[in-house]
Amino acid sequence: MLRLFRKTARKVGLPPGTLVQVEEKKAEKVKISLIDYDEAQFQEKEAETVEECFPFRDKPSVTWINIDGVYQVEVIEKIGAHFGIHPLVLEDIMHTVQRPKIEEFEDYIFVVVKMIYFDDKKNDIEAEQLSIILGPNFVISFQEKEGGVFDHVRERIRRNKGRIRKMKPDYLAYALLDTIVDHYFIVLEKLGEKIEGMEEELVTEPTPETLQSIHILKRELIFLRKSIWPLREVVNVLERGESSLIDESTGIYLRDVYDHTIQVVDTVETFRDMVSGMLDIYLSSISNKMNEVMKVLTIIATIFIPLTFVAGLYGMNFKYIPELEWHWGYFAVLFVMVIIGFVMVLYFRNKKWL
Amino acid sequence: MLRLFRKTARKVGLPPGTLVQVEEKKAEKVKISLIDYDEAQFQEKEAETVEECFPFRDKPSVTWINIDGVYQVEVIEKIGAHFGIHPLVLEDIMHTVQRPKIEEFEDYIFVVVKMIYFDDKKNDIEAEQLSIILGPNFVISFQEKEGGVFDHVRERIRRNKGRIRKMKPDYLAYALLDTIVDHYFIVLEKLGEKIEGMEEELVTEPTPETLQSIHILKRELIFLRKSIWPLREVVNVLERGESSLIDESTGIYLRDVYDHTIQVVDTVETFRDMVSGMLDIYLSSISNKMNEVMKVLTIIATIFIPLTFVAGLYGMNFKYIPELEWHWGYFAVLFVMVIIGFVMVLYFRNKKWL
Amino acid sequence: MLRLFRKTARKVGLPPGTLVQVEEKKAEKVKISLIDYDEAQFQEKEAETVEECFPFRDKPSVTWINIDGVYQVEVIEKIGAHFGIHPLVLEDIMHTVQRPKIEEFEDYIFVVVKMIYFDDKKNDIEAEQLSIILGPNFVISFQEKEGGVFDHVRERIRRNKGRIRKMKPDYLAYALLDTIVDHYFIVLEKLGEKIEGMEEELVTEPTPETLQSIHILKRELIFLRKSIWPLREVVNVLERGESSLIDESTGIYLRDVYDHTIQVVDTVETFRDMVSGMLDIYLSSISNKMNEVMKVLTIIATIFIPLTFVAGLYGMNFKYIPELEWHWGYFAVLFVMVIIGFVMVLYFRNKKWL
Amino acid sequence: MLRLFRKTARKVGLPPGTLVQVEEKKAEKVKISLIDYDEAQFQEKEAETVEECFPFRDKPSVTWINIDGVYQVEVIEKIGAHFGIHPLVLEDIMHTVQRPKIEEFEDYIFVVVKMIYFDDKKNDIEAEQLSIILGPNFVISFQEKEGGVFDHVRERIRRNKGRIRKMKPDYLAYALLDTIVDHYFIVLEKLGEKIEGMEEELVTEPTPETLQSIHILKRELIFLRKSIWPLREVVNVLERGESSLIDESTGIYLRDVYDHTIQVVDTVETFRDMVSGMLDIYLSSISNKMNEVMKVLTIIATIFIPLTFVAGLYGMNFKYIPELEWHWGYFAVLFVMVIIGFVMVLYFRNKKWL
Amino acid sequence: MLRLFRKTARKVGLPPGTLVQVEEKKAEKVKISLIDYDEAQFQEKEAETVEECFPFRDKPSVTWINIDGVYQVEVIEKIGAHFGIHPLVLEDIMHTVQRPKIEEFEDYIFVVVKMIYFDDKKNDIEAEQLSIILGPNFVISFQEKEGGVFDHVRERIRRNKGRIRKMKPDYLAYALLDTIVDHYFIVLEKLGEKIEGMEEELVTEPTPETLQSIHILKRELIFLRKSIWPLREVVNVLERGESSLIDESTGIYLRDVYDHTIQVVDTVETFRDMVSGMLDIYLSSISNKMNEVMKVLTIIATIFIPLTFVAGLYGMNFKYIPELEWHWGYFAVLFVMVIIGFVMVLYFRNKKWL
Repeated sequence: MLRLFRKTARKVGLPPGTLVQVEEKKAEKVKISLIDYDEAQFQEKEAETVEECFPFRDKPSVTWINIDGVYQVEVIEKIGAHFGIHPLVLEDIMHTVQRPKIEEFEDYIFVVVKMIYFDDKKNDIEAEQLSIILGPNFVISFQEKEGGVFDHVRERIRRNKGRIRKMKPDYLAYALLDTIVDHYFIVLEKLGEKIEGMEEELVTEPTPETLQSIHILKRELIFLRKSIWPLREVVNVLERGESSLIDESTGIYLRDVYDHTIQVVDTVETFRDMVSGMLDIYLSSISNKMNEVMKVLTIIATIFIPLTFVAGLYGMNFKYIPELEWHWGYFAVLFVMVIIGFVMVLYFRNKKWL
Repeated sequence: MLRLFRKTARKVGLPPGTLVQVEEKKAEKVKISLIDYDEAQFQEKEAETVEECFPFRDKPSVTWINIDGVYQVEVIEKIGAHFGIHPLVLEDIMHTVQRPKIEEFEDYIFVVVKMIYFDDKKNDIEAEQLSIILGPNFVISFQEKEGGVFDHVRERIRRNKGRIRKMKPDYLAYALLDTIVDHYFIVLEKLGEKIEGMEEELVTEPTPETLQSIHILKRELIFLRKSIWPLREVVNVLERGESSLIDESTGIYLRDVYDHTIQVVDTVETFRDMVSGMLDIYLSSISNKMNEVMKVLTIIATIFIPLTFVAGLYGMNFKYIPELEWHWGYFAVLFVMVIIGFVMVLYFRNKKWL
Repeated sequence: MLRLFRKTARKVGLPPGTLVQVEEKKAEKVKISLIDYDEAQFQEKEAETVEECFPFRDKPSVTWINIDGVYQVEVIEKIGAHFGIHPLVLEDIMHTVQRPKIEEFEDYIFVVVKMIYFDDKKNDIEAEQLSIILGPNFVISFQEKEGGVFDHVRERIRRNKGRIRKMKPDYLAYALLDTIVDHYFIVLEKLGEKIEGMEEELVTEPTPETLQSIHILKRELIFLRKSIWPLREVVNVLERGESSLIDESTGIYLRDVYDHTIQVVDTVETFRDMVSGMLDIYLSSISNKMNEVMKVLTIIATIFIPLTFVAGLYGMNFKYIPELEWHWGYFAVLFVMVIIGFVMVLYFRNKKWL
Repeated sequence: MLRLFRKTARKVGLPPGTLVQVEEKKAEKVKISLIDYDEAQFQEKEAETVEECFPFRDKPSVTWINIDGVYQVEVIEKIGAHFGIHPLVLEDIMHTVQRPKIEEFEDYIFVVVKMIYFDDKKNDIEAEQLSIILGPNFVISFQEKEGGVFDHVRERIRRNKGRIRKMKPDYLAYALLDTIVDHYFIVLEKLGEKIEGMEEELVTEPTPETLQSIHILKRELIFLRKSIWPLREVVNVLERGESSLIDESTGIYLRDVYDHTIQVVDTVETFRDMVSGMLDIYLSSISNKMNEVMKVLTIIATIFIPLTFVAGLYGMNFKYIPELEWHWGYFAVLFVMVIIGFVMVLYFRNKKWL
Repeated sequence: MLRLFRKTARKVGLPPGTLVQVEEKKAEKVKISLIDYDEAQFQEKEAETVEECFPFRDKPSVTWINIDGVYQVEVIEKIGAHFGIHPLVLEDIMHTVQRPKIEEFEDYIFVVVKMIYFDDKKNDIEAEQLSIILGPNFVISFQEKEGGVFDHVRERIRRNKGRIRKMKPDYLAYALLDTIVDHYFIVLEKLGEKIEGMEEELVTEPTPETLQSIHILKRELIFLRKSIWPLREVVNVLERGESSLIDESTGIYLRDVYDHTIQVVDTVETFRDMVSGMLDIYLSSISNKMNEVMKVLTIIATIFIPLTFVAGLYGMNFKYIPELEWHWGYFAVLFVMVIIGFVMVLYFRNKKWL
């Protein structure tokens, strides 16, 4: 389940840019995969140590270093030192509760976004932080944990599909962002199905579980919204393309991602509208149902309480009319009482009180 | 019924601009109709193959190519190649879940809007995507399926009504947009009638079905709003007329469409206000009704439960007063009990508890 | 009653600027009144035909042509042709569902506003469209139907009260707008009285009719808001005075109207706040009342149902205690039962359950 | 009590700037107090006629004319004529339902604000309109009625406390505005106490009177908000100090008032948030209470209705078991019935139905 | 508990900049701690009198004067006089109900923020006002009362950790603000835990206490929001760095604080969304529960009231059928009555009335 608030490592009072090693995450292995390519050649390897990546910094070809796991202080520090990344940026990379943002430095652009995807195995929505550093001839991406979200992009590089091998690292960064936004669509599709199912349910048989589902859905939409609004800002800044690191030819692709982001924003807002409408419908349905229950109770009471009273009265009086034959007296009493009860029900219905 | 969210063809990870053939739509025939005109002459034909349209690109007269059905990859690709349309634009045309938008290129303007119209046969609101490419001497329009929405425009060209034959393709594009906005008005009119009918119903006899209708109406308004807000933006960009493809003389007509769009936006917002007000009224009506039901129950209980008790008491005691004649005792008891019941009801009413 | 949505003459697909003759309105007579004045002289007449007005176009004095009834195509067309009005403007004049707006042309300014006034005869709020064309030395105003709203302005011209005779036509246009805004105040005053009356009612005796009134009030405020927000925009554009047709000296008067418009906007928003607060109060009052009803029922049931049970028990047992004298046994039983009932009521009250 | 809407004198159709004498206010005496000062000297007097103030216009020292009562047309007219005030301004002064605003003229600045203060005698919030005319060497202030709000300022002038005697009239105008904003704080303090009291009440014992108080509080906050938002605008315009009548050295003081105004705005918004939260809590409390009431009723009914039924059954049957001793049979029956009742209550509680 | 509104010392009508001694606070001791440092040296002392600090004003090293307790007029006045602080600023420092703000003067920058931290001893959120004066070579900070919030910063100066000793006073001011924002995060974390706990509670067992907790949480969020929105503005102004007192190299650190502030704002808004969602869920849960209670009541009544009636009828009639054996008659009657009761319950369930 998405958590709206994650505890951060307590770091109050430390000097800014101090990298904090979260104890429980220490053991987690960092996986470094490296792809180096240009139009002519292509090279891919799993780096054992972070130092293996360093020679690629000065090669003119495009180098994509993908790091799964960001909790090893020394790895992050080494990369930071070699690629000249500001300590505050390194802190943001390790501190995986950032709000999506973009920061432009002289030599590189730093982008943080939320990667939200549907995990088919867990059948649940997963979220993690993705940090991207876009340099003049390299892209470094930091994921929280291993995952296959970018497999399609790797495949396109390997097979030289599309124009990715012909382009600079800014296009690679675009491709990563594009993939992330595509995953937002898949998540929205899942939510859309859920909403449609729930609307069905609301109409046919609302239960307290429906309420619970609406509540969870609302949380998920709050989470999506919190991630997607600043993402929109991030893509917008990139698209305006004031940095020399963004090639003009990538502009149209970034505009395309921007359009998609807007569409996601739009859909999230629409879903919010719908879910809040569903809550109203739910409440009204419950009121309606209670109304029906009350009517049953009232009709029962209206017919039988007076009957019981009359029965009591007659029981009291029959003793004094012993000559009254029991069988036809019984029917007379029953008949009269049923008539009275129905007349009362009809009267109240007529008054629109029932 | 309008669907707020349509599944998109899964295309995560494909290079941008890849045209995807949706399997189930493959068989659908594409219908290409072509109209070529200037002030002096007029020519109309159904093109069998897309190549028949190509010679018209270089003719100085205005050419309007209307394509019904956008799911045949090769047709879209051929047009794109011949008229120099960017692959991302072609992708947007085929991917019929776009948000209304406008994109200005050097040689052409690309406009996507939602066409929403009332289908008299189905007696329901229908929506589809319309893409327009406005070039220096041609307009290409892509509809999702065949339909007669633009028949009036064709008629005006054929009969040389108004100034359409005298004007450039930008005026034709305007005429198409104007027609689309006109259809929004018709849809709003239908919704307006529905709302008025429901307000009547709310007052006279609210039922759970009313709630259902309010919910559906709300969805339709969310849908309309989602389509019309960006449309407003689109028309605004066109009207500001920064592109050389838009003639200055067309400006006043675009301003007129813009005014109409604003009016639609306004009406949609007003309807939303009204529908949300209706939900409040509905809830209050139900509470009112339950109040009435409860009052009936309470009055019945207040009169008859004590009566039953008293009847029981008397029944118990009469046995010990055998000398009491049954008939006048009966009336005395009844009289006293009815008096007590009514006094209690009056007392509670007085306290404003009933 | 104000209608939030008026059917428009169906004109989908007609060329823009086509004037449509609405059949049922055809017979309505158009009344043309003409006032021509400058500081020195004053002339007033009822024109039989529209042509009688034409000579005044070229006179240097200020000419005010007021047309009641806008559904006669040929009258509107003739005026349009003679005074050089754009066909789209003429269409807007006849198509009386416009949103308030202002359009500045080279030779004239076109203003559309909603005229909302309280009709004392019908004791209801009325609304119609007023179109004003302000030229260099004339003002043409188009009303939907005959009415005395502008009688005060005519009187001021006739009697040369204030500075109206000394000023140019822009001042006349200002005077018309000022009158319209003044009528908004009167309508607001009526609504204010209604609201105060209803607040009284809410406190003393809320009924389903109160709910109905709140609903109608809400509609009227939605309508007012829809008219007044764009009117504010219109007056603001006029006040900024970029057109040469607006004299600088008129600026301060337009600012005054602008202030009044803001005040109307403000009051409408305040009323909306109040009315939405009233709905909350209403709902709470109903819940409160139901609470009271339920308490009555529960107290009755808590006292009498156990009593009935005990009465039943005793009735059963007395038979086995025949030596028990009926009269003091009766009182003992009654006493004990009443004590038990009250103890229970007190207990539940103490627990704050009642 | 604050009235959200005050009837204005009907003046539809009168030329702008016409001063209307409200009949019922005619008799009210106008009180004119005059203070003239500079650093060296100080002079204070009650003027009998308005003409006594005129000589001060041309004195270089600062003159403060305070007028209590604005309903005497001739007084206002004379002042207007002598000090060169525009008729529209005079109209605004007399028409005491203005929205707070500022208007800059060549020779003077016109400011209208709402003076809201807590009247200790009436123990209620009072509101009136204050108009200020700031000229090059004079300040004229118009209050609706006599009151001691500005006594502190007079005292500071008399005793030469602070820098007021050293400064120009703009500082005096600032001092008046500052006093008014200070009174807003006192009003807010009173409302804050009221809110805290009501929160206490909501928790311990919500009654229909609480609802009434929330409603009144809401109205007062709507009123405050309506006055304070435009006041903020007014002070902001003054602070930006584009007029030559505002000395640069007064700027920092005006910024201080501006900060205070923002704080008032902030507090009003916070109060609104809290009051709307209180309404939710109130509604929930009522629902909670009704829930408790219903539970009592249901528990009573669940225990005693079946008991009554069983008692009836046994009463019927004992007759046929005469050999059953009454005393131990009584206890057996009672025991069994109570067991059954409690088992049912426990069962339903377990199902979380009670 | 956080108080949303604190009474201010009544100071209506006093000249601006008058420092008011709040009587009850008079006795409170002021604690002055002084740290003076540059890269090479470091000096720390507790000043007995304010005069001890004065010599440091002209030293080139960075001096940080921290004052705990702001209610001693003479201390504040002396500092103001010696460091050239404007009286209005001094007033704001002592008047500890300021809205967070920044004011730039020629020689110094004045910043007021709300310091909100979690007091572990009281297990509650505490708030106080922090005023910072940033001069060319000094920082003066005013806290309301003694507390260890800045101990970490002192430690960093003492131990020369990070770059603080190498930087100018603007970096020190940044470090203070950074610490304050870090404490906001801790407070948010506590609130986040509370919210998660309450969501758990809402689902499993909602009680009136849950409602109370939601209400308190809402208040705390209103308070946080009121403090954090203007803080964001303050940091933004600092970051834009137009003052010469802010070194360019501090810019990136301020941007970091700004990002954190945005994140706090974001989280507060998210929490507000969630809490308002919780209230809806709470209300729905209560309605659901009442529905269940009503169903129990109705089922009981539907089965037993008719049974009682039938029992009464039979009781009446058995007397007339003495030959009916009691035991099998008893079972027959019971059997028939239970069948009837269940048939009715099933019938109503089928109709979806129960």
